Amino acid sequence: MSTICAISTAKGGAIGIIRTSGPDAIRITDAIFQGKHNLTKAKPYTMHFGEIRDNDTLIDEVLVSVFHAPHSYTGENSTEISCHGSAYILQRIIELLLKHGCTMAQPGEYTQRAYLNGKMDLCQAEAVADLIASKNASTHKIALQQMKGGYSTKLKELRNRLLEMTSLLELELDFSEEDVEFADRQKLIQLAEKIHLEIERLTNSFHLGNAIKNGVPVAIIGAPNVGKSTLLNALLHDDRAIVSDIQGTTRDLIEDTITLHDTTFRFIDTAGIRHTTDTIEQMGIERSIKAAQKAQIILLMTEPGVDFPNIPIRPDQTVIKIINKTEHFQALYHIGIQELEEQLIASVHHDNNTLLVTNIRHFEALTKANTDIQRAHEALMLNISGDLVAEDLRQCLIHLGEILGQITSDEVLSSIFSHFCIGK
Amino acid sequence: MSTICAISTAKGGAIGIIRTSGPDAIRITDAIFQGKHNLTKAKPYTMHFGEIRDNDTLIDEVLVSVFHAPHSYTGENSTEISCHGSAYILQRIIELLLKHGCTMAQPGEYTQRAYLNGKMDLCQAEAVADLIASKNASTHKIALQQMKGGYSTKLKELRNRLLEMTSLLELELDFSEEDVEFADRQKLIQLAEKIHLEIERLTNSFHLGNAIKNGVPVAIIGAPNVGKSTLLNALLHDDRAIVSDIQGTTRDLIEDTITLHDTTFRFIDTAGIRHTTDTIEQMGIERSIKAAQKAQIILLMTEPGVDFPNIPIRPDQTVIKIINKTEHFQALYHIGIQELEEQLIASVHHDNNTLLVTNIRHFEALTKANTDIQRAHEALMLNISGDLVAEDLRQCLIHLGEILGQITSDEVLSSIFSHFCIGK
Repeated sequence: MSTICAISTAKGGAIGIIRTSGPDAIRITDAIFQGKHNLTKAKPYTMHFGEIRDNDTLIDEVLVSVFHAPHSYTGENSTEISCHGSAYILQRIIELLLKHGCTMAQPGEYTQRAYLNGKMDLCQAEAVADLIASKNASTHKIALQQMKGGYSTKLKELRNRLLEMTSLLELELDFSEEDVEFADRQKLIQLAEKIHLEIERLTNSFHLGNAIKNGVPVAIIGAPNVGKSTLLNALLHDDRAIVSDIQGTTRDLIEDTITLHDTTFRFIDTAGIRHTTDTIEQMGIERSIKAAQKAQIILLMTEPGVDFPNIPIRPDQTVIKIINKTEHFQALYHIGIQELEEQLIASVHHDNNTLLVTNIRHFEALTKANTDIQRAHEALMLNISGDLVAEDLRQCLIHLGEILGQITSDEVLSSIFSHFCIGK
Repeated sequence: MSTICAISTAKGGAIGIIRTSGPDAIRITDAIFQGKHNLTKAKPYTMHFGEIRDNDTLIDEVLVSVFHAPHSYTGENSTEISCHGSAYILQRIIELLLKHGCTMAQPGEYTQRAYLNGKMDLCQAEAVADLIASKNASTHKIALQQMKGGYSTKLKELRNRLLEMTSLLELELDFSEEDVEFADRQKLIQLAEKIHLEIERLTNSFHLGNAIKNGVPVAIIGAPNVGKSTLLNALLHDDRAIVSDIQGTTRDLIEDTITLHDTTFRFIDTAGIRHTTDTIEQMGIERSIKAAQKAQIILLMTEPGVDFPNIPIRPDQTVIKIINKTEHFQALYHIGIQELEEQLIASVHHDNNTLLVTNIRHFEALTKANTDIQRAHEALMLNISGDLVAEDLRQCLIHLGEILGQITSDEVLSSIFSHFCIGK
C-alpha cells in the first residue's frame, strides 16, 4: 500500500493542512521535519512543533499531528501538517513529501481507504462528501445521520430479515416432503410484505430526500396575470428568507431560492398557461408544463372567476392551490404569504428520525431491491417453488449490499470517490 | 482578557479549522465537546476525537487540539477544532462558541495577542501576514527570514549600539569639566557613521525589497515600432516563465507578469515615445514617462539608426539598454532574450543573507531614523553640545523601536492587524 499526501484545506486561509496516510506516513513526515522529538517515536494523538526543511532551506514552522494505525481516519498511519496558509508553502511541502516517497492522493482517497480498511461502509463514506457540501440544517442532518450509520443500520437490519427468510425457505426445502410448508409460507409472506413496505418507503423517500439535498423545486403555475411574479416577489422579499441566485443544476435559467425553516426552496420561473393559437406562446406554455413535471411542489394559482389550470400531476408531487386577489390571499399586500410558507414547510416535513434517501445510486439499488422483494412476495402468494423465491431474495440481498459497499465493483468505487474533493 | 474564536481555514476545503484563544479557551471548547476525555484535564499538545453537540443536536465529529499557556501560538490557552469543511458546520460551531462565552476574533487578533504576550515582536508579527501571502521563493524567503527574527536581531543590534553611544555621551556630559571630551567625540563620530551607514543601507533596500514583494515593475520604453510588444511577447512566451494576468495594484491596466528564477517581474505597458504635435499621442507619451518613473527596471529599447529615448532616470532604477533588430538581439526570433533574462535576474540579485526591507511602515520609520542619526553625526562633527546629540539619538532609538513595536500606538497596531486575515 502506498503512502499518499494531499492538501486538505482550501486556498487562501490563515492555516493550511496537509495530510499523509499509509504505512510510511510517519517516517516520511519525520524525514522532512526537525523538531524536539522524533516523530517515529511520538505517541499517537500528539502534536509536535518544528520546522519543515528541504536540506538547508527552511520551508515553514509547522505543527505535526501523529496518528497510529488503526486509530486514524483512514485506519492507517497518518500525519497532519499544519502550516501557514501560503499556496507556495503548501506546494513546497507537497513536493518534499513526493520526493521522499509519498504519492499524490486521488480525490476522496482518504475516505476510500477508510472504507477499504473497514472504518466505514460505502454509504457512510458517501455521506462524508454530502456532509462537507451541506449548506443548511436539513442537508446537514441527513448527511450526518447517514455518516453516523443510521441508514446503514436500517439496511443491515433489512438484510438480516432477508437472511432470516432465506433460512426459513431452506427449512421449507429440507422438509418439503413433510407437512410444514403451509405454516412457514404464511410467516414468509408476512415477512416479505413487511420488508417490501420498508424498502418501498425508503425508495419513495428519495423524492423528498433529493429535493431537500438539492433544494426543493417549486413551480408556480397559473394563467397569465393572476399574480405569479407578485407571489414570487412576496415569497423572496420576506425578512426571514435568505434570497440568493443559484445557477440551476438543470441548465435552466438562474433560479431564485429561499431558505425557510432550514430548507432551501428553489423556484422555477414559468410562463402563464392559457388556451392560445400563438405558436411562440404555446412553446412557453409547454415549457411551463415541463417545469411543473420537474417540481416537487406545484403552487397552482388562479384568481376569482378563472379556473385552475389543468396540468398533469404525479402522485409524489405536492399541490398547493392558491386563489389570489381575495380577502384571504393577496400576494401584492403579503396577505396569506405566511400561511403559504407554513404550507411549504409542512410539505417537506418529516419526522426527525425518518431516514431519507438522497443519493441516486442508493435510489437505483433500492428500486431494484424493491422489485426483487415484490417478486418474492408475489411468488410466495402464488405458492411458487422455494428455489425461485430464494433467488429473488438473493438478488434483493445483493442490491441492498451494493448500497453498503459489500458487493461493489472498482468502477463503481472510482466513480463514487471521483466526486470527492482532494484531501478527503 | 476575552477568549476569542474564528475560522482559520478558507471556504471550500475538506477540512475546516476553528481556533480559540484566551483564558477560557479550553473550558469553553470542552463545554460543547463530548469525547472520551475531559479537555480541561487533557495534556497539552494532545488531540481528542469526539463530537460537537448543541444540547441534543450533533453538529459534527471533530478532532480537538489542546494548547496550554504560554506554550501556544498566542501564548494563551488555546484549542483548534478540526471539523468537516462545511460552511454550515463551521458556522454552527462558531455560534456555539459565542453562546458559551467566546467573542469573535478581529482580523489578525491571534497574531496581535502573540505580539502583546511577547511571543514575537511587531515586525515578526507583520511577517506572518507576508508569509501567508507569499507566492514564490523570493517573497517566501524574505517573509520567513523576518518572521524568524533575522531582521529584528539587526534592529536590536542597532539599538544596542545607539544605547552605547548614549552612555558615552552621558560620560562626556558627566566629565565635561575635564579633558576627556575630544577622545570620546572621535569614538562617537565613528559609531554614528557606522550606524548611519547600516540604517541607510536598510532604508535603501526597500526599493528592491518592495519590488520583490509586489513584483518587480519593469517598463519597456522606446520609440514606436522598435519592437516593444514583440519583446514583451518574447519574454512572456518563454517556456520557463509562468505567464499570468494580475490586476495592477496601482489601478493601471491589467499587467502581464513572468516569474524568472523565483522572482516575479511585472511589465508595464507603455506607448512609444517620439516627438509629436498630436495632443492625444503626447498624452500617451506622458503616461509612458510616468510608468517609467514607477518602474524598478527600465528596458530602454531602440533599433539601429534611432537614438535611445531621453527620459529622466532615478539613481535607484536599473536601466537595461537594448538595440533590437541586430545580429545580437532580435526579439522576433528570440535572439538575446536569454541574456536579457539573466540581466533581469541579476538586477534583483542580493546576497542570501542580505536583509531587505519590504514594509512601507518600516521604510518610513527607517527614513526618520536615518535623518536622526545623520543629524547626530553632523552635530558631533560640528562639536555641538552633547545634550542636543543625545536628543537625536533618543529620536533614532524611538524610530527603530517603532518597527519592533516597542513604542507603538493602538492606532498603529490596529492599522497593522486590520490587514491580516481573520483566524490568524
